Amino acid sequence: MTSDRLSLVFGALADPTRRAILVRLTEGDATVAELAAPFVMSQPAISRHLKVLENAGLISRTRRATARLSHLEAEPLREVTTWLTRYQRFWDESHERLDELLAALQGKGGRGTVARTEGDDHG
Amino acid sequence: MTSDRLSLVFGALADPTRRAILVRLTEGDATVAELAAPFVMSQPAISRHLKVLENAGLISRTRRATARLSHLEAEPLREVTTWLTRYQRFWDESHERLDELLAALQGKGGRGTVARTEGDDHG
Repeated sequence: MTSDRLSLVFGALADPTRRAILVRLTEGDATVAELAAPFVMSQPAISRHLKVLENAGLISRTRRATARLSHLEAEPLREVTTWLTRYQRFWDESHERLDELLAALQGKGGRGTVARTEGDDHG
Repeated sequence: MTSDRLSLVFGALADPTRRAILVRLTEGDATVAELAAPFVMSQPAISRHLKVLENAGLISRTRRATARLSHLEAEPLREVTTWLTRYQRFWDESHERLDELLAALQGKGGRGTVARTEGDDHG
């Protein structure tokens, strides 16, 4: 995946509506009207989001009778996930650091006591 | 991770310079001057990119003497990777479909059409 393609895919994912559209498409292909239904958003606005997703290779579109169906194309998501896994050792490290910190705090006289700050509910 | 946080992280990753900065930081903490060195870009321009990365939680910054050091924070990358893995079965499927298509093409010697089953809605 080229650098520009990665930028297009990450840019397409940087919007909650577009991510929701992808989630919806995991259930099956859908028309613009079906995709627009859950949103307080016009069909032209949804169409613009679909254009961004299509441009990033995240959906393909086919015509069936008078409707255009959007179809999820997951391959670019595999590619960005591969890109991200190179950082895995760093997030593992930060978890280890956190574990060490917690162990140190619990070991040093704090006895790991967890104070309940919320009051009891029983009457 | 909230929807807005996901958007911030994906947005921060949607730029090749910012991704290159993260790659550089996997080698260790660095000053703005060190981060700017490989780029034909001013230090203020790099600082603006660092601000975006910091805002997305992807780096933290500490002061050492007169220099500000940037440090990779990989945790948000773990979180977006978790979000992406929900699509794994779809890219696995598309690989399987591709394998089937290739097998069909190789087996049937140039019969270029693959029948696509489209569901009929009865009722």
